[in-house]
Amino acid sequence: MAMATTPHSLLLQNPTQPHHQLPKTSIFKPFNAFSRFTIPNRRISISCAATSTQIQDRPPLPAHSQERLFNFAAGPAILPENVLLKAQSELYNYRGSGMSVMEMSHRGKEFLSIIQKAESDLRTLLEIPDEYAVLFLQGGATTQFAAIPLNLCSPSDPVDFLVTGSWGDKAIKEAKKYCNPNLIWSGKSEKYTKIPTFEGLEQNPDAKYLHICANETIHGVEFKNYPTPQNSTGILVADMSSNFCSKPVDVSKFGVIYAGAQKNVGPSGVTIVIIRKDLIGNAQEQTPVMLDYKIHAENNSLYNTPPCYGIYMCGLVFEDLLEQGGLKEVEKKNQKKAEILYNAIDESNGFFRCPVEKSVRSLMNVPFTLEKSELEGEFVKEAAKEKMVQLKGHRSVGGMRASIYNAMPLAGVEKLVAFMKDFQAKHA
Amino acid sequence: MAMATTPHSLLLQNPTQPHHQLPKTSIFKPFNAFSRFTIPNRRISISCAATSTQIQDRPPLPAHSQERLFNFAAGPAILPENVLLKAQSELYNYRGSGMSVMEMSHRGKEFLSIIQKAESDLRTLLEIPDEYAVLFLQGGATTQFAAIPLNLCSPSDPVDFLVTGSWGDKAIKEAKKYCNPNLIWSGKSEKYTKIPTFEGLEQNPDAKYLHICANETIHGVEFKNYPTPQNSTGILVADMSSNFCSKPVDVSKFGVIYAGAQKNVGPSGVTIVIIRKDLIGNAQEQTPVMLDYKIHAENNSLYNTPPCYGIYMCGLVFEDLLEQGGLKEVEKKNQKKAEILYNAIDESNGFFRCPVEKSVRSLMNVPFTLEKSELEGEFVKEAAKEKMVQLKGHRSVGGMRASIYNAMPLAGVEKLVAFMKDFQAKHA
Repeated sequence: MAMATTPHSLLLQNPTQPHHQLPKTSIFKPFNAFSRFTIPNRRISISCAATSTQIQDRPPLPAHSQERLFNFAAGPAILPENVLLKAQSELYNYRGSGMSVMEMSHRGKEFLSIIQKAESDLRTLLEIPDEYAVLFLQGGATTQFAAIPLNLCSPSDPVDFLVTGSWGDKAIKEAKKYCNPNLIWSGKSEKYTKIPTFEGLEQNPDAKYLHICANETIHGVEFKNYPTPQNSTGILVADMSSNFCSKPVDVSKFGVIYAGAQKNVGPSGVTIVIIRKDLIGNAQEQTPVMLDYKIHAENNSLYNTPPCYGIYMCGLVFEDLLEQGGLKEVEKKNQKKAEILYNAIDESNGFFRCPVEKSVRSLMNVPFTLEKSELEGEFVKEAAKEKMVQLKGHRSVGGMRASIYNAMPLAGVEKLVAFMKDFQAKHA
Repeated sequence: MAMATTPHSLLLQNPTQPHHQLPKTSIFKPFNAFSRFTIPNRRISISCAATSTQIQDRPPLPAHSQERLFNFAAGPAILPENVLLKAQSELYNYRGSGMSVMEMSHRGKEFLSIIQKAESDLRTLLEIPDEYAVLFLQGGATTQFAAIPLNLCSPSDPVDFLVTGSWGDKAIKEAKKYCNPNLIWSGKSEKYTKIPTFEGLEQNPDAKYLHICANETIHGVEFKNYPTPQNSTGILVADMSSNFCSKPVDVSKFGVIYAGAQKNVGPSGVTIVIIRKDLIGNAQEQTPVMLDYKIHAENNSLYNTPPCYGIYMCGLVFEDLLEQGGLKEVEKKNQKKAEILYNAIDESNGFFRCPVEKSVRSLMNVPFTLEKSELEGEFVKEAAKEKMVQLKGHRSVGGMRASIYNAMPLAGVEKLVAFMKDFQAKHA
């Protein structure tokens, strides 16, 4: 229904039409808000004589419209354009419900259907086994840094941490309040550019779990496979905030996977926890009720009011990932994007440099520096003029960083690579 | 610019136009998403011959469009229609930035400007003194039930609680983990329909603070003035989740005011804490970093990624409240709405009943029952047919409840009252 059959007439989207029938790229969706002016049949016919071809002959929605920036921010980060357009079209009146998702009671049937579908789609995407609970929480990974030990340990319990960047470091610091964490390896002395071989790691057999950060957002270091916990529980816990849903993951290898949504799957304000159900129910007495997984699991993430709109947005992203063919397809696209960017760096004869060891380079966050570091400011500024923004590296490491999450189109990376080559030619 | 000067032409909103110049009810705003098809001057001229009067002669945006429900939910709850339309218009491309607010780095200049303006407008609305910090947090009031004692007490410290409903009861239960709370008065035996006179209260002179819930969402009991803490600190702490920004409040009387946003000022997922700065910095050692006010105050609510889109929505609501003339004007509207609804109940000769003592009836949440309780299901169902939804009382108390927050138009309450009279005439 992208165009009505009568030339020059605009058929407005009927808000009662089921969502799945909507063409994702229909440019008519944002008209939805006006349909209240088109009683009774939601149709406005505009017979046009003069310049109507500007509308009639418009091109199909481009993969990335001219108006839009290529946003390389590390998070909150770029979201799929079609997801944003869909969200816009139904912000004022969600699918004929007469209200915005933001106005819905979290216990009403409309929102229950949203959160249940989001969970169901996520389960499909990651093939999450039934013995795992999926929780939609608040407070970011930083809140989980406390919640994990509070739920999985008593205060004297040992826990092993393998620290490959700033986020793992923050996690162990917070864990010290609630358990007895042990740093079994740190990449700090090598500026977090490596991941060790797992064989040589000395794990504590009494550790309650082994904690890793699967992808270090700031340092661009990503686990390509995972260590096997050499402790009595066999529990591996992973912060996957910045590579969540970027590739298939064997969930059954983990006790807990947690992720802030604001990188690959939604806006900030939603934290997703996937936890093996038998690990739930032993929180320390001092645990705030909002950090107790049992409370959230028993109430299907509705103990108190959840971040409803953020969960809705995550649901739209999950739908989009499924429509792309699932995480195997998504991973291929991410590999392609990362490949051309790392190649551009490696083939620059040292003009650009990525400090991270090749075998563990992140598909999501690509940090790089300039041999002539005095040009880095100009690089960032000139890129911004070309509508490529947020390329400045994290303040703790400097240089540049291109975050190329799921929603970054290949065209964005290609444009960046072309810009890099131009920049090099200009300054070599 | 609601209509272009040339008849039959549509002037699309220029996304670079400063926000404050936009007429709030412009029906053209949602067209914004299309402006990328209108290069170079963002103007589409459509000369219309036939039925264009359907557009040209449309009435100004009604206060509450026909398509929209009157949503009496207790939270998440109705939001101002013009705020939703504004949010919709700029969801895809925020004011020419080339990205959605949901995609912005929380450390970028665009979002910093959003959060700073939100704080500034809130300070204006509530006349918040400089010696108070304003924090935008996550996790709802329920997280604050732990954070308040963790930040204000040591574990053995006594605290006084005055409990006038379910939320105050939840607060004291959570506080038991982190301090030594003392229940100085509870309305439970009278089903939470009263607030005591303050003179007779036996407060503990050693209490670190006195805690109240300023408006009990479930029971419809609201403090009209506030008790003076009779303890050495003089600190009064109030959960204002369900009447926040519904009327002026003398912030200087409080040590801490906290509120979930999802009643009067935004979507769920944002919690606002207003705290006297000298109370910050003494958190217990066991406090999760995300519950430590010092961390958030020192980082201007940006220690980790905040719920950016929710904060943006709160900012739009604050702007709207200021445009209405501030909280004195808002309170007048709320008083008027509550008056006609309570009058309808009280003048029904007992057909409708509100159990709450008249002097402490909430302006926000109006619980009522039917003398013939067997008709309550029909009441809720028939009201829904008339587009008035979410009138069922909380599952813990039964009956009905009409939440009439700031964003509920007078017309919604008038319609409800007319419906109640019809219903009574039909069933008396």
